[in-house]
Amino acid sequence: MKYVFGIDIGGTTVKCGLFSDQWQVLERWEIDTVRNDENALLGSISASIMTKIAEKNIADEDVLGIGVGVPGPVLSDGDVIKCANLGWGRVNAKDLMEEMLQNKYTVAIGNDANVAALGEYVAGGGRGYESMMMITLGTGVGGGLIQNGKIVCGSNGAAAEIGHIIVDPTETDLCGCGGHGHLEQYASATGIVRMANKALAATDEATTLRNFNPLTAKDIFDEAKKGDKVACELVDMLGTKLAFALTHVAAVVDPQAFVIGGGVSRAGQILLDAISKHYNDNILTALRDKEFRLAELGNDAGIFGAAGMIMEG
Amino acid sequence: MKYVFGIDIGGTTVKCGLFSDQWQVLERWEIDTVRNDENALLGSISASIMTKIAEKNIADEDVLGIGVGVPGPVLSDGDVIKCANLGWGRVNAKDLMEEMLQNKYTVAIGNDANVAALGEYVAGGGRGYESMMMITLGTGVGGGLIQNGKIVCGSNGAAAEIGHIIVDPTETDLCGCGGHGHLEQYASATGIVRMANKALAATDEATTLRNFNPLTAKDIFDEAKKGDKVACELVDMLGTKLAFALTHVAAVVDPQAFVIGGGVSRAGQILLDAISKHYNDNILTALRDKEFRLAELGNDAGIFGAAGMIMEG
Repeated sequence: MKYVFGIDIGGTTVKCGLFSDQWQVLERWEIDTVRNDENALLGSISASIMTKIAEKNIADEDVLGIGVGVPGPVLSDGDVIKCANLGWGRVNAKDLMEEMLQNKYTVAIGNDANVAALGEYVAGGGRGYESMMMITLGTGVGGGLIQNGKIVCGSNGAAAEIGHIIVDPTETDLCGCGGHGHLEQYASATGIVRMANKALAATDEATTLRNFNPLTAKDIFDEAKKGDKVACELVDMLGTKLAFALTHVAAVVDPQAFVIGGGVSRAGQILLDAISKHYNDNILTALRDKEFRLAELGNDAGIFGAAGMIMEG
Repeated sequence: MKYVFGIDIGGTTVKCGLFSDQWQVLERWEIDTVRNDENALLGSISASIMTKIAEKNIADEDVLGIGVGVPGPVLSDGDVIKCANLGWGRVNAKDLMEEMLQNKYTVAIGNDANVAALGEYVAGGGRGYESMMMITLGTGVGGGLIQNGKIVCGSNGAAAEIGHIIVDPTETDLCGCGGHGHLEQYASATGIVRMANKALAATDEATTLRNFNPLTAKDIFDEAKKGDKVACELVDMLGTKLAFALTHVAAVVDPQAFVIGGGVSRAGQILLDAISKHYNDNILTALRDKEFRLAELGNDAGIFGAAGMIMEG
C-alpha cells in the first residue's frame, strides 16, 4: 500500500489526514496553528508527519507525497505570495517543507480554496467530471477551478477569485474590496441578508421575513421553502446574480460542472434550482446545460484536496 | 532534424506549413478546401503531406506529428463537434486522419481560433509567457486561452468564446446570437462602427468622422490618432468594454498576458492603451498589471499554432 498525507492549514488549527492511495482515510488528527512564523508552523507539521510515518512503520518509498493547503495565493511552483491570516510574507513553502522533511518526500502546496475545490473533484460533488468550477458561498465568495485533475492557479495565484466579478454595474453600495456591484455583495451569507434588508425596506408587503431579528441567509431560504413570496423573490434574485457570474466563467473555460459549496450551499436544491433556472437565459447554445451540483465534503474538502494534489499530480 | 506539419483549414483554402523542430519554416503551400465532405478534405490534406514527405525524403520517425486547425468546436480528444463552414457534422478528425496516414504519424486537432492563439504563444505576441488569453477582434470577437503551452478547449469545445460575454446589460440592440449587450456588439469591426453611428446620431458636435461614407473601424482609429474628439471618445468607450470583459477573464483564469489580434488590432498601440487604461479600474489588486500585447503573426498564426500542438504536446 502507498500513502499520501493531506494537510489543511487554517487560522487556528491544522487538519491532517493520512490516506491510502485508494482514497481510504486511514487516520485524521489536528495540530495547533503557530502564527507569524512559517518555519515554526511548517516545522511542527513536518515533525507531526515524521512521527506518524515512524508510528505506522511506513517505508519512505511508500509515501507518495504530502499535499498542503494554505490560506493565501500560491503559484504553481509552491511559492506562497503571502498569507495575511498566518502572518506570512513570500515564501516557497514547497522547498522549505521538503528540506524540513530531509528531501525524502514530495510536497505540493496549494491555495486552500483551490485545494477544497480539488477535494470536491476527487471525492465529492465534482467526482466524475473532467473539469469543474467550485463556487464557495460563505462569509465571502471564493472559488476554485479544476481542469483534468489539476488546479488552475493563475499567474498571480488569483485564478477563480470570482467573488469580485461585477454582476451589477448600477450598484451603489460598496463591496469590502472598495469596488461595487460584485458577486460577493449578493451571494455571500451577508450579501444575501443585505439584499433582503434592502427589499424589506422598499416594500410594505407582508412577509414572514420580518419576524426574524437578526435575519440570516438560512432564514431566507427556509421561508422561501415554505412559500413566502418575498423570500422566494430574494432566492430568485440570488439565482440571477450567480447565474450571470457563471455565464462569464463558462465563456472563459467552459467547465463541465459547477459545484456550489460553503455555508450558504446548505440551503440545498432550492439554491441549485435558482441558479440553473437563470443560467440558460444569457448563454450561447454551445455552453448550455451544464451540471450543477452541491459540494459534499464540507470541512473535509481541504484534506482530500491536499492529498489530491499528490494523487492527481 | 525532426519535422512538424502545421495545417490551417479555412473556408476556401488550406494553409500548410512544414516546420523544423527549431521553428524554422521550411516550406509553405496551399491547397483548395473541399467542402461538405470530411473524407475528401482530410484525404486531400493527407495526400499532400505524404507527397511532401516523399519529395523531401523525410524518414517516418523524423515526423513528430501533424497539427490541424479547423473552423469549429473541437474537444480535447480531436472530436470535432461540427463545422458549419465546412459542412461537417460530428467527426473525430484525429482518428480519421491518422488512419488516412496509415497510423504512421500523430495528428492533433484544434479549433482555429484556439490554434491561432497557440501560434501567438509559441512564436508571436504571447512568446515567453506561461499563460495568455488571445482576443481576436474581427468581423466577430473570438478568443483562445493557453495555459502552459496547452489549449484550453472546454467541455463543449467552447472555452474562450468571450465575444458573447455581457458587458452592458442595459443594451437594447440585439447581438447576432440573439442576446444583447455582448462584447461583440462593441468590439468587433462592425460593433465599433455601430457605436460610432449611434454616437454621431446623438450629437451635433463637429467631427471628421462625418466625412466618411461608409465609416469603418479603421477610420475611427485614424481620426482618433489625429485628435478628433468624438473618435477619441469612441476608442475610449471601446477600451472600457474590452477592459470590462478582460476583468472577467482575469478573475477566472488570471492569465499572465492578454494578446489582442484580428483586423481591428492593426490600430496598434492606441488600442492597447485604451484597454489597459481601463483594465485596472475594476479589478482586485492581485489581478492588476497584466501584460497587454498585440498579435504579431497575422494569418500565419494558424500554421504556427497547429505545429505548436505537436511541439508543445
